Amino acid sequence: MNDRLQKQIDFIIEIDKLKSIRRQTLIIDEDRQENDAEHSWHLAMLAFLLEEYSNEKIDVLKTIKMVLVHDIVEIDAGDTYCYDKEGYKTKADREQKAADRIFGILPEDQGKEIMNLWTEFERQDTPESKFASVLDRLQPLLLNYTKGGISWKNHNVKSSQVRERNLCVKDGSEELYDLIMNIIDDAVQKGMLQK
Amino acid sequence: MNDRLQKQIDFIIEIDKLKSIRRQTLIIDEDRQENDAEHSWHLAMLAFLLEEYSNEKIDVLKTIKMVLVHDIVEIDAGDTYCYDKEGYKTKADREQKAADRIFGILPEDQGKEIMNLWTEFERQDTPESKFASVLDRLQPLLLNYTKGGISWKNHNVKSSQVRERNLCVKDGSEELYDLIMNIIDDAVQKGMLQK
Repeated sequence: MNDRLQKQIDFIIEIDKLKSIRRQTLIIDEDRQENDAEHSWHLAMLAFLLEEYSNEKIDVLKTIKMVLVHDIVEIDAGDTYCYDKEGYKTKADREQKAADRIFGILPEDQGKEIMNLWTEFERQDTPESKFASVLDRLQPLLLNYTKGGISWKNHNVKSSQVRERNLCVKDGSEELYDLIMNIIDDAVQKGMLQK
Repeated sequence: MNDRLQKQIDFIIEIDKLKSIRRQTLIIDEDRQENDAEHSWHLAMLAFLLEEYSNEKIDVLKTIKMVLVHDIVEIDAGDTYCYDKEGYKTKADREQKAADRIFGILPEDQGKEIMNLWTEFERQDTPESKFASVLDRLQPLLLNYTKGGISWKNHNVKSSQVRERNLCVKDGSEELYDLIMNIIDDAVQKGMLQK
């Protein structure tokens, strides 16, 4: 095997570990946590199907690539729960180290491409990264809502926290922001989420 | 919510079930079967990273979309193990019914797009579907090989069967075909796979 293909295969095997990184969200049909690989597949499907709701025109291939890779750093850095204030203090540093190691396995051009996609996603300053972030907010909300709000209850989350966390969605999609706010209202009304 | 968005959200929730469809392949880091959602994410990453090895020029976005949706029919039809001759007799019929029901949840234009991607994948007569099929062969082989050949051993699979199943890879990628044949040779030599 030539050196380039060897590096690509090494990376492909390395990222299999994403299937073992658990998120706080539960999947709908089983009583188990979702993992990052499943979550990333689901986001790619959302990017494919909901593109029309982006406020700005987006490059769909770039957006799909972005959501496919956005959580790979968690292989080393772990999943930081979105309402975990302590975890967020060290998140950026842990994830940068992870990105350097994991993306460094690839041939240089591809390592750079993925590093750029990931840093763009973290910076949130392009139409694609804003829309990817919308999807990253909407997907767990849909799962959690369909599941009766279990992970909100488990973590004593209040509706004001969920509203605040989803404020940024407006920036990427007015229509999906309205959808999310309606879901939150309904979740409060149905007792899935504390007022 | 308008009718179009409602259908899209219904579909997004429906396909969460793909996370519960088990394949015969085991993931590398845990002693458990891979599910179709994880597998589809992994294939999308392979499409992203290995595009350069396709015999013919491919539309990468189309290829990624194809691998993202190629197993959704298994929500109703189940996973048919690739060396299960009996299961293969009814596979096409079971899967067509599943496609009609599941893709029918979407707005018509998007349902058609996914139906076309899936039937194209099944027909194997375009550069994208041939390359998608290469990835669908290569990914479980890499996992199985890295894992010491457990699922070959569990199912008493012989190297001639694996070689035969991978013959079609040559059609999509000469270089990845050579890689696969080398892996099979090595697996036989290391006693992971019966001669």
